Amino acid sequence: MGDEFYLSLAIDKAWDCQLLTYPNPAVGAVILDENGQILSIANHQMSGFPHAELNATKEALEAKNSSLKELFATAKNANELYNLIIKNHQNLLKNSTYYVTLEPCAHQGKTPPCANLILAMGAKRVVIGSRDYGKHARGGADLLAQNGIEVKLDVCKARCDELLEPFLRWQSGNFTFFKIALSQNGVATGGVISNLASRTHTHHLRSLVDLMVIGGATVRIDRPTLDARLFSKKSPDILIYSSYANFDPKISLFNIPNREVIISNSLDLAFKKRFVMIEGGENFLRNLDSRVDWILIYRSNEFKSANNINLDMKVKILHRSTFGDGELLWCKRVDMGVNS
Amino acid sequence: MGDEFYLSLAIDKAWDCQLLTYPNPAVGAVILDENGQILSIANHQMSGFPHAELNATKEALEAKNSSLKELFATAKNANELYNLIIKNHQNLLKNSTYYVTLEPCAHQGKTPPCANLILAMGAKRVVIGSRDYGKHARGGADLLAQNGIEVKLDVCKARCDELLEPFLRWQSGNFTFFKIALSQNGVATGGVISNLASRTHTHHLRSLVDLMVIGGATVRIDRPTLDARLFSKKSPDILIYSSYANFDPKISLFNIPNREVIISNSLDLAFKKRFVMIEGGENFLRNLDSRVDWILIYRSNEFKSANNINLDMKVKILHRSTFGDGELLWCKRVDMGVNS
Repeated sequence: MGDEFYLSLAIDKAWDCQLLTYPNPAVGAVILDENGQILSIANHQMSGFPHAELNATKEALEAKNSSLKELFATAKNANELYNLIIKNHQNLLKNSTYYVTLEPCAHQGKTPPCANLILAMGAKRVVIGSRDYGKHARGGADLLAQNGIEVKLDVCKARCDELLEPFLRWQSGNFTFFKIALSQNGVATGGVISNLASRTHTHHLRSLVDLMVIGGATVRIDRPTLDARLFSKKSPDILIYSSYANFDPKISLFNIPNREVIISNSLDLAFKKRFVMIEGGENFLRNLDSRVDWILIYRSNEFKSANNINLDMKVKILHRSTFGDGELLWCKRVDMGVNS
Repeated sequence: MGDEFYLSLAIDKAWDCQLLTYPNPAVGAVILDENGQILSIANHQMSGFPHAELNATKEALEAKNSSLKELFATAKNANELYNLIIKNHQNLLKNSTYYVTLEPCAHQGKTPPCANLILAMGAKRVVIGSRDYGKHARGGADLLAQNGIEVKLDVCKARCDELLEPFLRWQSGNFTFFKIALSQNGVATGGVISNLASRTHTHHLRSLVDLMVIGGATVRIDRPTLDARLFSKKSPDILIYSSYANFDPKISLFNIPNREVIISNSLDLAFKKRFVMIEGGENFLRNLDSRVDWILIYRSNEFKSANNINLDMKVKILHRSTFGDGELLWCKRVDMGVNS
């Protein structure tokens, strides 16, 4: 199988934690041993937790020697894991191949540099999707090449760059996504996604964003809570997008501790925050602000006897995730004039 | 990686040719060399063409020794390929592992038995999804085990059995699927799928079925041709499901050579044929005959400003295929009472 095949496995794995790594990029890594056997497929899961390369290295070593599992499980954080690996790798990954969706970092951040880890393992070859142009972390590919590792860049570049988009937008100031739940026949399910896995994912996202935006009509009609209880106790701050400021204070969302609620007839404030989630329905989607980067469509497995959301829009589907019996489509709006 | 991982690769590959193998089952196969490296991922593509195991064996040998490509390209049919492989495999697949979605056949059909091929290669291990209960082809797993190969059965069994459903229904008399094209927001696109890859796939299916069913209203309004021109010159026979028999004879579908057109107010005739495709819209889908096995939804990447098809139905999505910028959902109706 070619490099694209293995890097695609890394890309898919990275998408499993897309956005959940905020403010870090979603990254995936695959390691093959010297004979070409897949040892691990891993990702970066959360800020402060091991990078994809470190997770993949841990799992690859465990695949070669299962007795290492117990040792590695004693690591209390990414740094300890890194050090345990450096001391105990037994050259098990000598001449291995690493596939990474993003150039391995070359800097000491919350965790030690991944490029040095790969060097320490004695890898033979590193295949990279996107290059890291960040001023802190870049230089990993050069470091690897200078130390005699065969480095191949820009494999599946377009798909790896798409994967990286939220990170680059966070870096430049703001990434905003719009979330909607639809039935198979395009009925907006009114805020309640039937599937627990999808709802938990939404709550996970709510727990991470800097601001959540919701339309005034939705607040009045659905009287939502908009917390993250299925995942975390941390509820997002809310901007209610409305021309009118009078809402029934008994609506649950106003009664969540440690939450700021702003009512505004402008979205400008939202686009000043770094990571923003908009939950809305037909009108919000039809009049979508051009500053919104992505649309997340949770699609149930049901047809519903009701009217659809009725609008013209073309999307590019970047990725599909499965959640129980439903799915999540990660989409970007496409300019109808250019691409239709 | 575990057996499920590799068998999943075989399952996905098999779905690429689902239904196109009529009257044969859709089957996928993956081969790992003695060190666990993936050598090939292949499928059965069409009746009379090599079985998945033969295609995978060919590709695996070529991966080990690329000079075999030229030799194997001289084979005029599956039998010749089989014989070339038996004579020229150089023990390159000694101690390999085969992953197959369906138990390898043990009988001489249009092609020699796959179980014997695997034996001849000197494989060490064979991992199988579904068992073959057919009276002709069964016995492959026993033959392999009797010859010292480690055989593991029933891996990913539920998914492999789903994959096999059309084949089993063809065997017992009839498999019927309903095809519809929908936008992202549930608008039935009226018979025209915007994407060439999806349209070609539809035409491929039309060229294979024993009968195509279409509603009378669609014939009157759309005046369709219903041929398979994007794939083949063979156009399907048509049953127009209608209480009235008077149609404008100038409608294109009536003027295709070598085609039978029947007009009937009953679908009974359709379910007497072995492989039947229904193309229809909202009414047909809402009143779907319980004898229809699967629903194929081609979904475009557009939202359309129009009304959706409006009905209650729950589906299980068996598989998703990507066609250009759109996708095909392979679905089964689910009993709302039991599963909702």
